[in-house]
Amino acid sequence: MSEILKSVATRRAFLRDSAKVALAAGVATACKQDASATTVRQSVAAHPAAAGGAHDAAAAALANADAMDAMHEKSIKAFPAKTSGKGNQVLAPKLDKGVKVFELTAKKIQWETEPGHFVEAWAYNNQVPGPQIRVRQGERVRVILHNELPESTAVHFHGLELPNAMDGVPYITQSPVKPGQKFTYEFVVPNAGSHMYHSHHDSAKQVGLGLLGAFIVEPRTPTPAENVDHDFVFVLNDGPHGYTFNGKSFPATEPLVAKLGQKIRIRFMNEGMMIHPMHLHGMHMTVIAKDGWPLSNPWRCDTLNVAPGERWDVIVSCTNPGTWAFHCHILPHAESEHGMFGMVTALVVQK
Amino acid sequence: MSEILKSVATRRAFLRDSAKVALAAGVATACKQDASATTVRQSVAAHPAAAGGAHDAAAAALANADAMDAMHEKSIKAFPAKTSGKGNQVLAPKLDKGVKVFELTAKKIQWETEPGHFVEAWAYNNQVPGPQIRVRQGERVRVILHNELPESTAVHFHGLELPNAMDGVPYITQSPVKPGQKFTYEFVVPNAGSHMYHSHHDSAKQVGLGLLGAFIVEPRTPTPAENVDHDFVFVLNDGPHGYTFNGKSFPATEPLVAKLGQKIRIRFMNEGMMIHPMHLHGMHMTVIAKDGWPLSNPWRCDTLNVAPGERWDVIVSCTNPGTWAFHCHILPHAESEHGMFGMVTALVVQK
Amino acid sequence: MSEILKSVATRRAFLRDSAKVALAAGVATACKQDASATTVRQSVAAHPAAAGGAHDAAAAALANADAMDAMHEKSIKAFPAKTSGKGNQVLAPKLDKGVKVFELTAKKIQWETEPGHFVEAWAYNNQVPGPQIRVRQGERVRVILHNELPESTAVHFHGLELPNAMDGVPYITQSPVKPGQKFTYEFVVPNAGSHMYHSHHDSAKQVGLGLLGAFIVEPRTPTPAENVDHDFVFVLNDGPHGYTFNGKSFPATEPLVAKLGQKIRIRFMNEGMMIHPMHLHGMHMTVIAKDGWPLSNPWRCDTLNVAPGERWDVIVSCTNPGTWAFHCHILPHAESEHGMFGMVTALVVQK
Repeated sequence: MSEILKSVATRRAFLRDSAKVALAAGVATACKQDASATTVRQSVAAHPAAAGGAHDAAAAALANADAMDAMHEKSIKAFPAKTSGKGNQVLAPKLDKGVKVFELTAKKIQWETEPGHFVEAWAYNNQVPGPQIRVRQGERVRVILHNELPESTAVHFHGLELPNAMDGVPYITQSPVKPGQKFTYEFVVPNAGSHMYHSHHDSAKQVGLGLLGAFIVEPRTPTPAENVDHDFVFVLNDGPHGYTFNGKSFPATEPLVAKLGQKIRIRFMNEGMMIHPMHLHGMHMTVIAKDGWPLSNPWRCDTLNVAPGERWDVIVSCTNPGTWAFHCHILPHAESEHGMFGMVTALVVQK
Repeated sequence: MSEILKSVATRRAFLRDSAKVALAAGVATACKQDASATTVRQSVAAHPAAAGGAHDAAAAALANADAMDAMHEKSIKAFPAKTSGKGNQVLAPKLDKGVKVFELTAKKIQWETEPGHFVEAWAYNNQVPGPQIRVRQGERVRVILHNELPESTAVHFHGLELPNAMDGVPYITQSPVKPGQKFTYEFVVPNAGSHMYHSHHDSAKQVGLGLLGAFIVEPRTPTPAENVDHDFVFVLNDGPHGYTFNGKSFPATEPLVAKLGQKIRIRFMNEGMMIHPMHLHGMHMTVIAKDGWPLSNPWRCDTLNVAPGERWDVIVSCTNPGTWAFHCHILPHAESEHGMFGMVTALVVQK
Repeated sequence: MSEILKSVATRRAFLRDSAKVALAAGVATACKQDASATTVRQSVAAHPAAAGGAHDAAAAALANADAMDAMHEKSIKAFPAKTSGKGNQVLAPKLDKGVKVFELTAKKIQWETEPGHFVEAWAYNNQVPGPQIRVRQGERVRVILHNELPESTAVHFHGLELPNAMDGVPYITQSPVKPGQKFTYEFVVPNAGSHMYHSHHDSAKQVGLGLLGAFIVEPRTPTPAENVDHDFVFVLNDGPHGYTFNGKSFPATEPLVAKLGQKIRIRFMNEGMMIHPMHLHGMHMTVIAKDGWPLSNPWRCDTLNVAPGERWDVIVSCTNPGTWAFHCHILPHAESEHGMFGMVTALVVQK
């Protein structure tokens, strides 16, 4: 691993862990100096106009700029970077006399958020986010939760208007599901839209560690909004795993890929503790639903503020070819002086 | 008080006071160990399957889970907990030749936010929030402010489009009202809706400490939205009193109670410094007004992001019986590993 | 400079620099005591009722209140305070064969955010915000960026739906523009509305330091919303320069001035890292556009939550004469116990 790559890795570690800021800052500075040292000669050589004796300051500025830019370039060129594990995979149900049965096993795993960076995750079916559950309004659904965690837990179906006993809130609607136990949720899916499921027990910790997933309900009667070429789910999180889209940080985030002229739907879901105003470059988004409920008056934007617990559905007409940055516009969630990281991906519109 | 209750109390104290985090964390850890120690045997006994020699780790996990769950249960079973003092009580005006006269006395008090936890509050009429003022558009209103605080103050009627001299901003529209002085505001109520009154002097401190209240203006001509069975006011705050709804923290928050089939109106008002995305379980909310202004196109949601200074009016049709969690979805405002606290209440729909 | 002014200046310095909090707090306390000491006698004299021996506590409270109020008064009476430098000035283009040519030079400057307080800024054309670019939809525009910074940079036209190569994201759509280099952007302006331009390289730092500006596109066909008496741009920021409107902190912010009966348009743009719910006193705002896109259903409010990267256009009918406070309603962004500061200005409606 080159010095520059090492410093990028170091930077990521220190951004993640505020408790180590003082130490890491020193390390980062040291790394930056190393990087500068190794690139000064090259960049001076690469910018001959700046190489004269009268241009020492300019040469130094260029060398520093080159060193910084090299880190930025590496991070972007690595995108989309491979990591082990992929969250939000559609879970195929088993059928039991017309009931769609989904099994979720919650347990502690190691999760790679970006190349080489592993975190402790509490995950459903070894995925962060947990597997995507996708059903149709009016279907009968059974969700069997197996708890292999060291804590009790429970599943709340956030946005679904279920019978009270299926709401998943320990001591309000059910007993906690203890380690080693299982619990069965069963219901007829009442309302359509982009919903979520997540732990509702010790939730500030358990959701932060990954016990969350998308629960998508297609409407009983398909609407024109359903006619899209691609349907993307975009779960935002900002807990102990860092700033993530679908459990991964840039450059390990997944790009959204479409062809010129296609129409895509994006379902934003915020499972974190902070707002994330999502900014798309190059094209606007038409907002068609809030928390799964269609808007009678859709509106357009390029920056959509998504608050914790909210879901927003948007349509993008892919009219502008190219690779477009797509990121949280709280800039420290997306870029540092070492390059882009965290809540960044791209919409790729192919000709 | 049991060990577990003590540790809950300790947890609450340390969540409140970030200046004492290091110390309190140690105390909390100690308490948790105590709680675990006292419950290990019971829980092992309660889960005989885990009691064998080969299951020591599972037994330990269960014991820990039981200890944590006991804290969660205690907190929820205590709801709604009794505390002294109740804010947001409707203030009956005196009538003076057709003018509705409200007297507000601002002074320093002790305020109980949850059982046994008293904080210094700066309050109107000994209430946090101050008494609810409820009038009709077009009525003549007189508000007499008596200042018994150790600082100057003034009242701003947030959302009312008053004559400038009644706007309550020291050195812009009036002189500050000194300790021991009084000041009289008088105006014809111009615009309907869910508004607020609060201090506009040293306001980051004075509003945080409790100098705030709801000012509800019924429209001159009642609208269909007025036809509800219950009309709830929900003042959010997040200052030195912790995370509160109408001046109280869970489990001392007040539940919203309605009968199956009833229609309720909720008026959210944020007097804090942070957003609070309010999430209702089991039913959706139809948003009908922003800052007191009716929306020509109401929209539906289950998670409503309420920013500081904003007011949002929603209607809920109580179609789903049961006790439903209703909380801020920034999870650390609502739950810790010691159970629910802060910005949590319930909507109870009775059959 | 009087003792009180000194303490105000001291207060501002310590609010700005959290790294110096411990030290500055001590200084501020000392100053406050000085101020109290110098005003106790005057205020006791000014409040003869409180001067008796039996009223020592009341007299002390009054003296403290007078000292605090004096700081509040000074701050407000200084408004609008003169500072050197003015951002957001409309930049007149040069014409080159029908192309409107704008030149932007990015370099490091000293910037005065409030009287006597200078910060390091990275600025376009020596302004924070950079000069306002105002064009019409369909016009051909050339923007020439000269980089005189010690880092590479690039310009992203936030909200404009440009050809990919003009999007300004290093390593995605172009190479970074190195120190000493220039880069030319050229395009036909595609979509109307309130947009922004800013750095998209090391952006968390470069935008925070001032590399940002308004890019206003008038629609090809003027709409009724265009018929206003005044059109104000309101860039919010919250980085290392403190809480600012158009690069200045209260009392150096610029008031919005209109005549009774006039209609004004305000274009809010958030270039910071935090939400800012903007609260107007005395009149409501009608929201007509989001990110430059007209709303088919405008809605009214008095507190508009503006998230990072968002632009919101509102209309205010100036029907209520007077000087009206206009501020962020996260109160610690607008007032301390030393008076108003940061994100505060006024709308002045003249008879």
